[in-house]
Amino acid sequence: MAVLAAANDEAGVGALDRLLAATADEMGKVNALILSRAESHVEMVPQLARYLIEAGGKRLRPMLTVAAALLFGKADGAQTNYAAAVEFMHNATLLHDDVVDDSDMRRGRPAARIIWGNPASVLVGDFLLGQAFLMMVETGKLDALGVLAKAATIIAEGEVFQLSKAKDVTTSEADYGEVIKAKTATLFQAAAEVGAIAGGADETGRAAMRTYGLELGLAFQIVDDVLDYRGESGAMGKNTGDDLREGKMTLPVILTLREANPAEREIIAASLGNVDTSESALAQVIAIMERHNAFGRSVEQARAHVGRARAALAGVPQSEMRNILSDIAEFYVSRAY
Amino acid sequence: MAVLAAANDEAGVGALDRLLAATADEMGKVNALILSRAESHVEMVPQLARYLIEAGGKRLRPMLTVAAALLFGKADGAQTNYAAAVEFMHNATLLHDDVVDDSDMRRGRPAARIIWGNPASVLVGDFLLGQAFLMMVETGKLDALGVLAKAATIIAEGEVFQLSKAKDVTTSEADYGEVIKAKTATLFQAAAEVGAIAGGADETGRAAMRTYGLELGLAFQIVDDVLDYRGESGAMGKNTGDDLREGKMTLPVILTLREANPAEREIIAASLGNVDTSESALAQVIAIMERHNAFGRSVEQARAHVGRARAALAGVPQSEMRNILSDIAEFYVSRAY
Repeated sequence: MAVLAAANDEAGVGALDRLLAATADEMGKVNALILSRAESHVEMVPQLARYLIEAGGKRLRPMLTVAAALLFGKADGAQTNYAAAVEFMHNATLLHDDVVDDSDMRRGRPAARIIWGNPASVLVGDFLLGQAFLMMVETGKLDALGVLAKAATIIAEGEVFQLSKAKDVTTSEADYGEVIKAKTATLFQAAAEVGAIAGGADETGRAAMRTYGLELGLAFQIVDDVLDYRGESGAMGKNTGDDLREGKMTLPVILTLREANPAEREIIAASLGNVDTSESALAQVIAIMERHNAFGRSVEQARAHVGRARAALAGVPQSEMRNILSDIAEFYVSRAY
Repeated sequence: MAVLAAANDEAGVGALDRLLAATADEMGKVNALILSRAESHVEMVPQLARYLIEAGGKRLRPMLTVAAALLFGKADGAQTNYAAAVEFMHNATLLHDDVVDDSDMRRGRPAARIIWGNPASVLVGDFLLGQAFLMMVETGKLDALGVLAKAATIIAEGEVFQLSKAKDVTTSEADYGEVIKAKTATLFQAAAEVGAIAGGADETGRAAMRTYGLELGLAFQIVDDVLDYRGESGAMGKNTGDDLREGKMTLPVILTLREANPAEREIIAASLGNVDTSESALAQVIAIMERHNAFGRSVEQARAHVGRARAALAGVPQSEMRNILSDIAEFYVSRAY
């Protein structure tokens, strides 16, 4: 992978600092709103919600909403609610995903379901989803609400589709594209679009941010799927090889299976969806993937999406925020190196 | 119980027929919308959703929305979307509840999670919730959306609260009241209120329907909780004694424990939350409950709520629909006889 390490990697890291600085004031309001809206007189609700929320995560999605709002220069304040709603939708999805996937770890700590159980994780996810819609309603803008409601159904559909494809070695690249578009890129797209709405963007600006968010989300998920095999558990907050053991048909597996010989296919099939896959069996699968350059080719696809995300920004006025959004796309793909 | 059988039981049964007839045209549109909105290109989504939807259920909640809209005489068509959204929210809750409670049966058939698994049940529930909000957005009315979004969070909170009280023999009547208000009555209340909004009700009319829906929902849940011990599995679509085995602190248990002697308390505590409770142990618990007239006293409370529901209707203009809504409240409590 080192050979792919881009020269603008350093510029990318700088971009994150610049994005954090440019959105710091707004994100302060968003974080306060997130904490206050996780409150409930039912103790277990804020306990569980805060456990997940305070584990942090990158807050990339709400930051995208805020950045998009500031980009168009006429931010009216609605972005605070939208950003918090986007983060709540994301957290609701994480809670439900961990139940669906029987995951033990999330953001480097035991998953909430390990501590509070599956039932509470399902229900607190529902609570966060309800709060997300309530925060949207409070802004009084139906078009933004429609964007997020539509996203909620597409995300759930995508998760079901992914579930139906688990362990299915005939899963195509197109199927994978559909899954990651629905389950990940749709929320990035919605986050960017509702930000644009709050920022007073015209239809051209909204369309540009839709494309930017979508392509950024696709790149982000492909990189995430590569890191699942290559990252370290500590950095990722998950266990390396989780996707393999859960039978998730991600791009590195699909690309490898397409070219693997019968012996290699058999080794992969034995580990796919097998929770008891050993570390040595995982290492063997990873070696096969590297032999077929599956990680390198996956990252190349991610880079192509980043290119399209950056190109979409041509549709919005030139500004420092636009430069940051362009560079940040580069940064997120650089995580894979 | 026979001694409680009210003289207006027969009028009650007639009321259901009258309600069905008065809402038939509107419910035809609602049912068509429900089926079309359960569609998805991801096969498992409509399969699972239709399995639950076609099992029927009484469609009481959407019927309440439609009836409330017609009651005020200025129904503008939005009630179709609202009613379908209410039913989707209800079905989403059922899917998640069955996962939370490990339930095997629902509406007289194996629960969806037994056929498609817990993961698909969680995700299709999320899909239905998203579709519910989308249908609300399409009507373009923010106040109705706010009512349903608020209801969604309260329902989830109530379910978490119930979960935290499972097997807790110190659960009070007030705790129980809070649980059923949140998890059941809130949706009845919202169903009636959004119907009133679609019907062009003024604030007095809306407030009347809020109270009517709330009190009807409270009565409905108390009766349901009585039937869990007294109903037959076939009629209820669930197994008799499920609540006891799941450790649910419902009104009959709470009223019994308050007056039970130590020996009786011990017998109940041994079965509460014990999935292996035998039929004979269940019969023993039921005998103790009857000794303390827990079912009769529960039904009395339900009757009091029905009285308040009917009284609330004084706030809306006299009409045949108002008579039907008054009688139907009586009918639903008559199920307990």
